[in-house]
Amino acid sequence: MSGTIRGVGLGPGAPDLMSVRADRLIRSSRHIAFFRKAGRTGHARTIVQGMLRDDAVEHAMEYPVTTEIAVADPRYNACLAAFYAQWTEKLADLAATGEDVVVLCEGDPFFYGSFMHLYTRLSGRVGVEVVPGITGMSGAWTASGAPITWGDDVLTIAMATLPEEELTRRIRDTDALVVMKIGRHLAKLRRALAAAGRADQAWLVEHAAMAGERVTRLCDAPATAPYFSIALIHGQGRRP
Amino acid sequence: MSGTIRGVGLGPGAPDLMSVRADRLIRSSRHIAFFRKAGRTGHARTIVQGMLRDDAVEHAMEYPVTTEIAVADPRYNACLAAFYAQWTEKLADLAATGEDVVVLCEGDPFFYGSFMHLYTRLSGRVGVEVVPGITGMSGAWTASGAPITWGDDVLTIAMATLPEEELTRRIRDTDALVVMKIGRHLAKLRRALAAAGRADQAWLVEHAAMAGERVTRLCDAPATAPYFSIALIHGQGRRP
Ligand SMILES: C[S@@+](CC[C@H](N)C(=O)[O-])C[C@H]1O[C@@H](n2cnc3c(N)ncnc32)[C@H](O)[C@@H]1O
Ligand SMILES: C[S@@+](CC[C@H](N)C(=O)[O-])C[C@H]1O[C@@H](n2cnc3c(N)ncnc32)[C@H](O)[C@@H]1O
Repeated sequence: MSGTIRGVGLGPGAPDLMSVRADRLIRSSRHIAFFRKAGRTGHARTIVQGMLRDDAVEHAMEYPVTTEIAVADPRYNACLAAFYAQWTEKLADLAATGEDVVVLCEGDPFFYGSFMHLYTRLSGRVGVEVVPGITGMSGAWTASGAPITWGDDVLTIAMATLPEEELTRRIRDTDALVVMKIGRHLAKLRRALAAAGRADQAWLVEHAAMAGERVTRLCDAPATAPYFSIALIHGQGRRP
Repeated sequence: MSGTIRGVGLGPGAPDLMSVRADRLIRSSRHIAFFRKAGRTGHARTIVQGMLRDDAVEHAMEYPVTTEIAVADPRYNACLAAFYAQWTEKLADLAATGEDVVVLCEGDPFFYGSFMHLYTRLSGRVGVEVVPGITGMSGAWTASGAPITWGDDVLTIAMATLPEEELTRRIRDTDALVVMKIGRHLAKLRRALAAAGRADQAWLVEHAAMAGERVTRLCDAPATAPYFSIALIHGQGRRP
């Protein structure tokens, strides 16, 4: 009997915003794997602090590159591909010995997540499952205190890593907006919002549902944004 | 001391996909309110079956209209506005007597939800809070067995209630797609997908994370779709 690898969504950050299913799996699993930057605790691991079995075996999957090599450099992809291939082998070997593994995933695993790179490589080789989670963006619009979409509103979700012109076009042509992966791209995002004539409608939510949660009008926000930041424009659609 | 009204996200349907926070609030609350069609049990109420306190007081908020009056008819809005105003009074009165109330919300409350209509009316009058939930669309792409977005993918979320031309334009101009509120609009959605040249990329997920979950290529799906249906096109973005 071979084991199952489960990508388990943790939600936006507060431990009690993970699902009952995720909570049960994390507390009962002997093998817990998670991604992190080398030398850090890792945010996913931090969320489950105090929940793991005493005899849990932890598998820290440390990214070989993050910002040292440019994303456009072919070595970036080659390096990451080797990393995912290596962990695919390790987890598949564990599953072959009959062990189940929980892989901790921030937010929802299938929504711009890292686990997807293991999932596609493991599929067809061993049992792989996904437990959905509350996305970071749900945490963000909840923190903002206003609904994101009404009636027929179109919601566009775009990454701040897009080229400035493309970002501008997307911001102009939508009712409601979510922008993720802001980090070093905040200045570009501001210019795109201004070019689209919507700078005054945008909110920045930092660390949604985590310690240090902060909601500000994007025009009043500082010049740098942390990794966990989401920009929002709320839809204004039809309502009775 | 006045009470707090909490819109609590239930997630896509499986009871163990609600958050630990939602589970705790629902099991401990004396007042439980939920929307439903007159004469039905109500889907939100069904999800929490077996979880309520023995002495729970249930407040069934029955929609006065659903499909009998056309959405474009001004009486539709007037009728719904009166309904929301009436429940706003009832819940505010309950809170004024010091009682907390949990309002059950399918998926995530701030994402195209009905609770939003009470939330905006109650805000500033009594304490109102929202507990985010896993959206129906997260349930849908998880059921589809494939990630929805990679890398820089743009995800567009559109309602099938949009005019056909607008729907076509949105489907053409996105990497990944989620279409909700399909119901009677399935034939229009098929035409829009075909006009955008993407009919063969679309999946239909019915009853995600509920009994009767079904995933089919949209081109192979029957001519009618149930209320709980979501169409998806998976993004194919950059990946190592
Ligand atoms: C690689 S994506 C992962 C998204 C995740 N799978 C989800 O479902 O939210 C990382 C981006 O998600 C956003 N994010 C996720 N959780 C967040 C939170 N709690 N607060 C603010 N931003 C968050 C940030 O924009 C960050 O750059
Ligand atoms: C009024 S919207 C409510 C959305 C909800 N607040 C959420 O977060 O998913 C209703 C639409 O959501 C979609 N939906 C919600 N849950 C679903 C599920 N479990 N399976 C399929 N569709 C679902 C359907 O398209 C339905 O027409």
